Amino acid sequence: MAAAISPAASAALRLLKPLSAARLSSLFTNPKFNHTSAPLLLFSHAALSRHHRSLCSVVPAAVSSGEATKSPEPLELEKGANIREFRKKFKIVDIKGGDDQGLDRLGETLVVRGWVRTLRVQSSVTFIEVNDGSCLSNMQCVMSSDAEGYDQVESGSIATGASVWIQGTVVASQGSKQKVELKVDKLILIGKSDPSFPIQKKRVSREFLRTQAHLRPRTNTFGAVARVRNALAYATHKFFQENGFVWLSSPIITASDCEGAGEQFCVTTLIPNSSEATNSHVNAIPKTKDGSIDWSKDFFGKPAFLTVSGQLNAETYATALTDVYTFGPTFRAENSNTSRHLAEFWMIEPELAFADLEDDMACATAYLQYVVKYILENCKEDMDFFNTWVEKGIIDRLNDVVEKSVVQLTYTDAVALLLKANKKFEFPVTWGCDLQSEHERYITEVAFGGCPVIIRDYPKVIKAFYMRENDDGKTVAAMDMLVPRIGELIGGSQREERLDYLEKRLDDLNLNKESYWWYLDLRRYGSVPHAGFGLGFERLVQFATGIDNIRDAIPFPRAPGSAEF
Amino acid sequence: MAAAISPAASAALRLLKPLSAARLSSLFTNPKFNHTSAPLLLFSHAALSRHHRSLCSVVPAAVSSGEATKSPEPLELEKGANIREFRKKFKIVDIKGGDDQGLDRLGETLVVRGWVRTLRVQSSVTFIEVNDGSCLSNMQCVMSSDAEGYDQVESGSIATGASVWIQGTVVASQGSKQKVELKVDKLILIGKSDPSFPIQKKRVSREFLRTQAHLRPRTNTFGAVARVRNALAYATHKFFQENGFVWLSSPIITASDCEGAGEQFCVTTLIPNSSEATNSHVNAIPKTKDGSIDWSKDFFGKPAFLTVSGQLNAETYATALTDVYTFGPTFRAENSNTSRHLAEFWMIEPELAFADLEDDMACATAYLQYVVKYILENCKEDMDFFNTWVEKGIIDRLNDVVEKSVVQLTYTDAVALLLKANKKFEFPVTWGCDLQSEHERYITEVAFGGCPVIIRDYPKVIKAFYMRENDDGKTVAAMDMLVPRIGELIGGSQREERLDYLEKRLDDLNLNKESYWWYLDLRRYGSVPHAGFGLGFERLVQFATGIDNIRDAIPFPRAPGSAEF
Repeated sequence: MAAAISPAASAALRLLKPLSAARLSSLFTNPKFNHTSAPLLLFSHAALSRHHRSLCSVVPAAVSSGEATKSPEPLELEKGANIREFRKKFKIVDIKGGDDQGLDRLGETLVVRGWVRTLRVQSSVTFIEVNDGSCLSNMQCVMSSDAEGYDQVESGSIATGASVWIQGTVVASQGSKQKVELKVDKLILIGKSDPSFPIQKKRVSREFLRTQAHLRPRTNTFGAVARVRNALAYATHKFFQENGFVWLSSPIITASDCEGAGEQFCVTTLIPNSSEATNSHVNAIPKTKDGSIDWSKDFFGKPAFLTVSGQLNAETYATALTDVYTFGPTFRAENSNTSRHLAEFWMIEPELAFADLEDDMACATAYLQYVVKYILENCKEDMDFFNTWVEKGIIDRLNDVVEKSVVQLTYTDAVALLLKANKKFEFPVTWGCDLQSEHERYITEVAFGGCPVIIRDYPKVIKAFYMRENDDGKTVAAMDMLVPRIGELIGGSQREERLDYLEKRLDDLNLNKESYWWYLDLRRYGSVPHAGFGLGFERLVQFATGIDNIRDAIPFPRAPGSAEF
Repeated sequence: MAAAISPAASAALRLLKPLSAARLSSLFTNPKFNHTSAPLLLFSHAALSRHHRSLCSVVPAAVSSGEATKSPEPLELEKGANIREFRKKFKIVDIKGGDDQGLDRLGETLVVRGWVRTLRVQSSVTFIEVNDGSCLSNMQCVMSSDAEGYDQVESGSIATGASVWIQGTVVASQGSKQKVELKVDKLILIGKSDPSFPIQKKRVSREFLRTQAHLRPRTNTFGAVARVRNALAYATHKFFQENGFVWLSSPIITASDCEGAGEQFCVTTLIPNSSEATNSHVNAIPKTKDGSIDWSKDFFGKPAFLTVSGQLNAETYATALTDVYTFGPTFRAENSNTSRHLAEFWMIEPELAFADLEDDMACATAYLQYVVKYILENCKEDMDFFNTWVEKGIIDRLNDVVEKSVVQLTYTDAVALLLKANKKFEFPVTWGCDLQSEHERYITEVAFGGCPVIIRDYPKVIKAFYMRENDDGKTVAAMDMLVPRIGELIGGSQREERLDYLEKRLDDLNLNKESYWWYLDLRRYGSVPHAGFGLGFERLVQFATGIDNIRDAIPFPRAPGSAEF
C-alpha cells in the first residue's frame, strides 16, 4: 500500500509514528472525520488515543524475543485498554439516499471512500465517479488541478477500479443525473487498480461476469442484486418474527433415511481431505470383506448426505413451538445445467401448527406480499434500475402482487382451464399429469393476467408421502403458488397428521417405516393439524429483480462442473 | 384424528358437511374465534366461506376419474377464489407475556391450543397445564366436571403430551405461580398421546433428550434455548442491518483450494445416493488408469468440500459493498467428541472495508453488547429460567457484558500476565505458544473478573496466512475475544491488503498462489484496508444461556458417529 500513498498522507503518517502505515485506515473510519472541516484536529486526536494504548503494550525486549519475564507494569496490565466506540460508517447512501438526494447537505464537508467507477479528465476539471456499494448511485467528485492529491490524477493512478479517500464540499450539481456533487478538497489514493482490471466501463456480459464472481458485485447490476437479495432476506426474518415464528436451523448433513427422493450429495471423510484429494486412490477407501464401502469407518458411522429440505425437522419444532421457519441452504445433485436450477440454493420453510391448507395459503400470500412491498419501499433506486435495464414493467408487476388478491383454484379446475385453452402445449394435459412450466406460466401469465395463482388439491400419486389425503381419496391438500416468468415459486401442503393414514402411505410407497420412527412419533404424541410451505430464495430474487438466470441471483452459484471461488 | 374428537366437535363437524374432519382445524385458527364468546357464529361463518369456495371446485365425475372434460363453469373458473386473510396467531404469550401477566384480560373468553404438560385431577376441579411453545409459561386451565368435554378427562385421554383446544374465561388465579388462569368452558382433544410418551413430568437427563431431539423442544429447557437462539439470530440481523451491512450467503460447497487448513468433509456424487449407499461397492467408483479416483466424473468435475469459513468470499463482497456479513453453516470433520465441538455449526462472519483492527474490535464489542442486551430485554422469562435452573448468576454476568467496557491487551501482555499468575497451568506458557482454553479462561474469569477481554497482535507463526503483518514483523493484527466459561467466542483480524506481503506469505507457507488468484485479485484492483471476525453461533448460545454442552445449543447436533434426525 505504501506505494499508493500521496505526499499528504505521508506527512500525516509521520505525525503518527511509530505507528504503521496501516493505521491510516483508522482515520478513514473515525466517524467524526466525516463532518469536520478541520481534519488535522482528528489526526492529533487519533494520535493521542494511540498513545494511550501504546502505554499498555510496551513490551520488554526479552519478552518479545521469546524469553518471557515479569511485566514491568503490573497494574496497567490488569486494567487493559479500552475499545474504540463503534459507530455506523458514513456512506454515499447517507448523502444521496434521502428524499432530498443530498440537497439537504449543501455546503457540508464530507469524506467518501470507495472505488472509482469512471474518470473523465476535462480541460478545467476532472470528474471522478466513486461508488461504495451502499447504493447504486455513484458520488460524482469534481476535482480541479489545485486540489490536494491532484498529482495522483496526473500520474494516472486514479483509474477505474482504484480505491480512494476523498474529502470535499457538497455543492449543487450542474449535471442532470444528480442533484449534488462533491467539490474535492483532497484526494488520497488507497489502492491502485492494475490496468488489467476486467470490469472496465464498457458493458460486459453476465456470462463473462460469472467467471469473475469475486469482482462482479462491483457492477451496477450485481451490486443491486446483492442489496435487493439482502433486503428480501431481512424482510423474510421481519415477517416471520413479527408474526411470532421461531427461526430454526435445520441440519445440513443428515444420515436420516427420510429424505429419499431427489438426487443427494454424499458427505464423507473416507476420501482424503483437500490437499490430498486430487490424487487419492480408490483402493485407499475402507471396504468390507465383500468389497462394499465400509461405512462404519466414515465420520458418522453410516452414509450421510446433504439435506434436500428442512421440512421434516421443522415439523418436529412446529409441534412444540407452534410456528417456526427455516432459512438455510439445501442441495440437489441434479445434473441439469439450466438457467432455473442450482445445486446449492437457500430455502425458506415455514411450518405452522394448528393450521390447515387454508392457513398455509394465507401465510404464503401474506409473506410474498410483505417481502415484495418491503423491497418496493426500501430499494427504490435499485428497483428503478431493474425496471429500466433488466425487466421493463417489473415495478408495476410487483405492485400488482402487493395490491391485487392472489386467487386459488383446484388442480382439477386448472386442468379444465388448460384443456379449454386456445394454445398448443408441448406436454399434453390430462388429469393426473404433473403440470409443466409451460402450463404454470400459461395459467398465471395468460389466464390470470400476470397475478400469482395458487393451485391446490393435487393428485395424490404425483405428490410426496407426507401430504394430507383429502376426503376424495385421490387428491392431497397440497398447494403450489405460481407467479409470472418463474412458474412455481412456493410449494406447500397440509401434512398428514393421522398416524394410520401416514403409515399406510409409507407402506404403499414401499418406504421403510422404521426409518421414519421420529417423524411418526409426532403423530403418536399429541398430533395436530399442521401445514407449511417451501420457497426457493433464489427464485424469489429472480422474481423480484427480473434477473433471467438463477446463477446471477446468488453470489457464488454451484452447478454441474462449477464450484469455483 | 377422528377417534380423538369429542361429541361437541362431532356436532360441529356435522354442520360443515361435506367437509372433512380436518377442516376442524381451521376453526382453531380463525382469529375471530379467539375473542368471541359465541363460537357457533363462527361455525356458520366458516361454513359459508367454504361454500363459496366449493362453488369453484365442483368437479365433474368424468374429470376426477381421470378423463378430462371441459369445465362446466368457465366464468367462475377464470375468477378463481380468494385466499383467507392471514393474521398473527393468538398464543399463550399474548395472555401471559405482558407486564400484567394476563390481569389485563380478566373476564375475556379466549382459546388456547397447545400440548398438555401436566394434568392434576382433584376432587372438585381438574388442573390442566397447557404449553404452546410461545413462552415458557404454561396456561393453567381449571376445569370442573360440568364443562363441555370433561368426558375426555374422565376417559383418560387428556394426558401429558396430548394436544388440546381449550376455550375458557380468564380469571384471577388462586395459586402463587401465576396471576391468571383459564376457567374452562369447553375442551376438545386434538391428538392423544400414547402412554409411551418419553418426556413425562419427571426430570429427564439432557443426555437422554439428545436421543429424542424431535421431542426435546417440548421441554422447558429446550423450548427456552430455541427461543433465545431465535432471538440471538434475529438480533444479529438487526444489528448488522441497522449498521448498513449487507447479508451475504457464502457458498457451502466449494472446490476452491483456498481453504486448506482444517479437516474438511468431501462432497461427492461418485458414491451412489441414499437408497443404494449402504451396499455400494468400492469398485463402482470411477477411477483413472493408475487407480486414482476419477474426479472428472464427479458432479463438480473436481474434488469438492464443505466450507470451513465464508471469510474469503465475504472479503470479495466487502471490497465492493464496504460492509457485509455472512450467517450460515460451516463444517469441521474434526474427530473430537467433546462438549465444545460440533461437526456442523453456524457462523457469523462480518467483513468491514476501510477498517483496521481497532474498528474490528469496536464492531465485535458493539455486536456482542447489542445481542446480549436484546435477549435480556426480549427473553426475560427464559433468562430467569436459565438464571434459576441452568447457571445461577448468568443475568448478572450478561448485564456486566452490556454495561462494562470490554478491555484489550496484546498477546505479549497476556503472556506476561499468565507468567506472573499464581496458578499452575497444564500447558506451560511461553511467547509464541497458542493460548489454551485454560489460559483464556484464567484471563477472562480471574484476571479480569468475568469481563470479556480481547487479546490482539498474536505471533505470526500461529495465525492464518491472510492476517495483516504488524510492523514488528513478528506479530499480526489478529484479535480474539475471550469470555467467561467459553474461552474464545470471537476471532478476527485485519486482513493483509498488501499484494507483495500476501504473496510472500503464501510462498513462505508453500501455498499455491494460482489457487488464490481471485483472492489476490482483491489486492490487485483497488485494495483497501479491511478487517473482520468470525463468531461461532452455538458458542454464543452457550454463553447466553449457560448451557454446558454445545450439542444442546443447536436443534440437531452433528458429531462423530451422530447425524440422526
